Amino acid sequence: MSDLKLPTRAEDFNEWYNQLVLRAELADYAPVRGCMIVRPYGWTLWENIQQALDRRFKATGHVNAAFPLLIPKSFIEKEKHHVEGFSPELAVVTIGGGEELQDPLVIRPTSETIIGHMYAKWIQSYRDLPVLINQWNSVVRWELRTKLFLRTLEFFWQEGHTAHATYEEAEAETRQMLDIYNDFAATDAAIPAIPGRKSDSEKFAGADVTYSLEAMMGDRKALQSCTSHNLGQNFAKAFEMRYLDQQGTLQHCWTTSWGLSTRFIGAIIMVHGDDQGLILPPRLAPFQVVIVPIYKNDEERAAVMGAVGKIRAELIVAGIRVKTDERESFSPGYKFNDWEMRGVPLRIEIGPKDVAKGTVVLARRDRPGKEGKSFVSRDNLAATVEKMLGEIQKSLYDRALAFRKSNTVETNDYKELKAAVEKGFAYSYWCGRATCEEKIKEETKATMRCIPLDQPGGQGRCVYCRQPAKEKAIFARAY
Amino acid sequence: MSDLKLPTRAEDFNEWYNQLVLRAELADYAPVRGCMIVRPYGWTLWENIQQALDRRFKATGHVNAAFPLLIPKSFIEKEKHHVEGFSPELAVVTIGGGEELQDPLVIRPTSETIIGHMYAKWIQSYRDLPVLINQWNSVVRWELRTKLFLRTLEFFWQEGHTAHATYEEAEAETRQMLDIYNDFAATDAAIPAIPGRKSDSEKFAGADVTYSLEAMMGDRKALQSCTSHNLGQNFAKAFEMRYLDQQGTLQHCWTTSWGLSTRFIGAIIMVHGDDQGLILPPRLAPFQVVIVPIYKNDEERAAVMGAVGKIRAELIVAGIRVKTDERESFSPGYKFNDWEMRGVPLRIEIGPKDVAKGTVVLARRDRPGKEGKSFVSRDNLAATVEKMLGEIQKSLYDRALAFRKSNTVETNDYKELKAAVEKGFAYSYWCGRATCEEKIKEETKATMRCIPLDQPGGQGRCVYCRQPAKEKAIFARAY
Repeated sequence: MSDLKLPTRAEDFNEWYNQLVLRAELADYAPVRGCMIVRPYGWTLWENIQQALDRRFKATGHVNAAFPLLIPKSFIEKEKHHVEGFSPELAVVTIGGGEELQDPLVIRPTSETIIGHMYAKWIQSYRDLPVLINQWNSVVRWELRTKLFLRTLEFFWQEGHTAHATYEEAEAETRQMLDIYNDFAATDAAIPAIPGRKSDSEKFAGADVTYSLEAMMGDRKALQSCTSHNLGQNFAKAFEMRYLDQQGTLQHCWTTSWGLSTRFIGAIIMVHGDDQGLILPPRLAPFQVVIVPIYKNDEERAAVMGAVGKIRAELIVAGIRVKTDERESFSPGYKFNDWEMRGVPLRIEIGPKDVAKGTVVLARRDRPGKEGKSFVSRDNLAATVEKMLGEIQKSLYDRALAFRKSNTVETNDYKELKAAVEKGFAYSYWCGRATCEEKIKEETKATMRCIPLDQPGGQGRCVYCRQPAKEKAIFARAY
Repeated sequence: MSDLKLPTRAEDFNEWYNQLVLRAELADYAPVRGCMIVRPYGWTLWENIQQALDRRFKATGHVNAAFPLLIPKSFIEKEKHHVEGFSPELAVVTIGGGEELQDPLVIRPTSETIIGHMYAKWIQSYRDLPVLINQWNSVVRWELRTKLFLRTLEFFWQEGHTAHATYEEAEAETRQMLDIYNDFAATDAAIPAIPGRKSDSEKFAGADVTYSLEAMMGDRKALQSCTSHNLGQNFAKAFEMRYLDQQGTLQHCWTTSWGLSTRFIGAIIMVHGDDQGLILPPRLAPFQVVIVPIYKNDEERAAVMGAVGKIRAELIVAGIRVKTDERESFSPGYKFNDWEMRGVPLRIEIGPKDVAKGTVVLARRDRPGKEGKSFVSRDNLAATVEKMLGEIQKSLYDRALAFRKSNTVETNDYKELKAAVEKGFAYSYWCGRATCEEKIKEETKATMRCIPLDQPGGQGRCVYCRQPAKEKAIFARAY
């Protein structure tokens, strides 16, 4: 970490983000334009996200597998919306083993096509359904404007792909996965997201319906945090995924896909971070607690480090992820700033007086300065720490929810919408027509983020055209 | 599973392997030549391998990260041996986002170069060392003759890359990782491998020294199961990885790399499998136990399934990975064969009489027929099962070790070596000259697998040229 201060979020949110990602050593720029390296601190955060999701996927009957990263270019062309959406973004391999390839290959931008091809081979009968497979991998999309975690040429994600006997089952799966993402976002990432349906113009290339989670970032812009698609029979027809039903009739399958990527790390940074740096939710933080020993001479050092070792062991036994900062070349003050910047939820300070008194200082990352400090007994310290981590987790969620609510306006007319999207989310009746959506986008730079699943009922008038409207939608500027 | 029998290993080992991989649903051929899909059963095995290794990597201070899959072609050319080794095998991306790229990119065949580039940026001082990073990913090498798991265009692996201040530290790291692989192979995979040093002609393109584990397969050929390389300062010099030492002098780093891939799954199949199919070591098996209920009517079914549910719950609580085969459309006999083919280490059979008597039948996969069956009480069943899984694990190791020993000949002269490599490993004095190694390869098709770390001491005469020799080496035909 350099000693330079980050820009404040109010000064330059964009630059605050970029510098923070680099200084906290979450990620770095690769030598290839638009690619990123996820550094160990960032990758450990991703591993914790992976575990939190993978546990939920497996509990609902999904299994993992691995499909190849090279796909025949012709596969992408088999589903008409898919090819329109992805053709402009492909990375194409034309040379292999020193020779020009007769059939060029693309690096997967997503795996519906190759998986569709294999499912067609594996699925014969209703007995083979459902197929519930997920994979953790990376994909490549040739993006022009890139930003670490939010939009990179290569990004890391999971992509679930399922095949079912009926529309109803596929829709239930699509919604189940959205629920799982939302539970993960709320419980583990402390992010209050809005689950909803995308408009036709914003849905996935090849989907019948796309659902997403939309979350409000610290600059009050929206971030699409993950998606779950009901693909209908589009890919089943393009790749001939068929099964014999119980009556002996050949039927096309119904398929879904759903994904959450390293983009979600961007959401965690931008939802919780403050002007000092990251604030990581305890359930996902690589280190939940950092212990900073304080001493002036060898004698004090011996006493303090003895206590530090015992505390560390006690916390590890309790299943808490702990870092002890034993660096000799830095002052405690420097270390405090460093770990605050890196977002460790809780700091334990311990000096010779604390050792003598049998106490430690706990400093909460989510409450800077004196307000977040408490002096606690070393007795039952693990229990005290666990309790406080739980409080931090809850307080981060509550704060993000209050922030979103206070920056969301239920608008009555277009003028109000225009004002609302200047500083947050607009929640407005919309008639469902793409033309109104398009005009709003042109005139305000706000896009239709989603039609929230949770609707007030009743009806009103479209915020743009004043025609009758049954549903309310979220409009906002977005990443 | 089809009802067709596998060829026996004696009839056609190669075809036994190929059919088994497909029928056990470990992997399948991708539509792109030479690529594979690792199916859920195979991937779960790989996840268990990953966990067993990752735990050991982290316990020795390593952290995971993710580097990009796209590398500038020019990077590969910076280290002279590296470019010679990998140039013929590259997959080259020449088109991105619809436009021809000015600088072509390659899909990583391995990541020494891109990681070297980043380490040069991250490492400044001796305080930044050592850097101990691993990544789990896939790499692409344009192989011409491919075989599922053993050699595919894309394969899945981990690659560790470390940077150190001294040669001694780098060498210690290289050896430590070989030890970790060997402990994993012996303890978790029940594979008795030979840790040793590769000859110069067999070492990694860019390494000073390559160590490997060599294991004997069921057809008595050798398989290189993983490697650990001391890269000296070769990549440090090519990529300017330098640090200021404690005296303020700029020094080049010393680096290592080490990897184990999905090839190891091939080793597990070929070391333990028999004519009925796979035999998976209990510590890595996706399912350690399969429960097959036996009943003839609804009444019996109710009683049996009640007991099955309780047994299943009891085993899961004890941390045992259990599959219950509840398929209605298959007979118990069919299920027995199916799960034997898939290599589940232990089967529990339970019918109405067993329910009445409070017993179950346990059938060990490693001992076919009556010899492997026992009737045990349902009291303390989890403990009985755990104990038996431990015995199976040990017996697989012992059997593989005995097999290797009985098929390894300590040769006194070249005639003996020629006979030995027809049916196993030759263990022979070798003078260290590449010319002798090359002649042996030409004349016998056996390669120098490794110079085992464990040496008898003393000295003898080279098996080929009869010159004095200090070390013994393993010669064998290999995958």
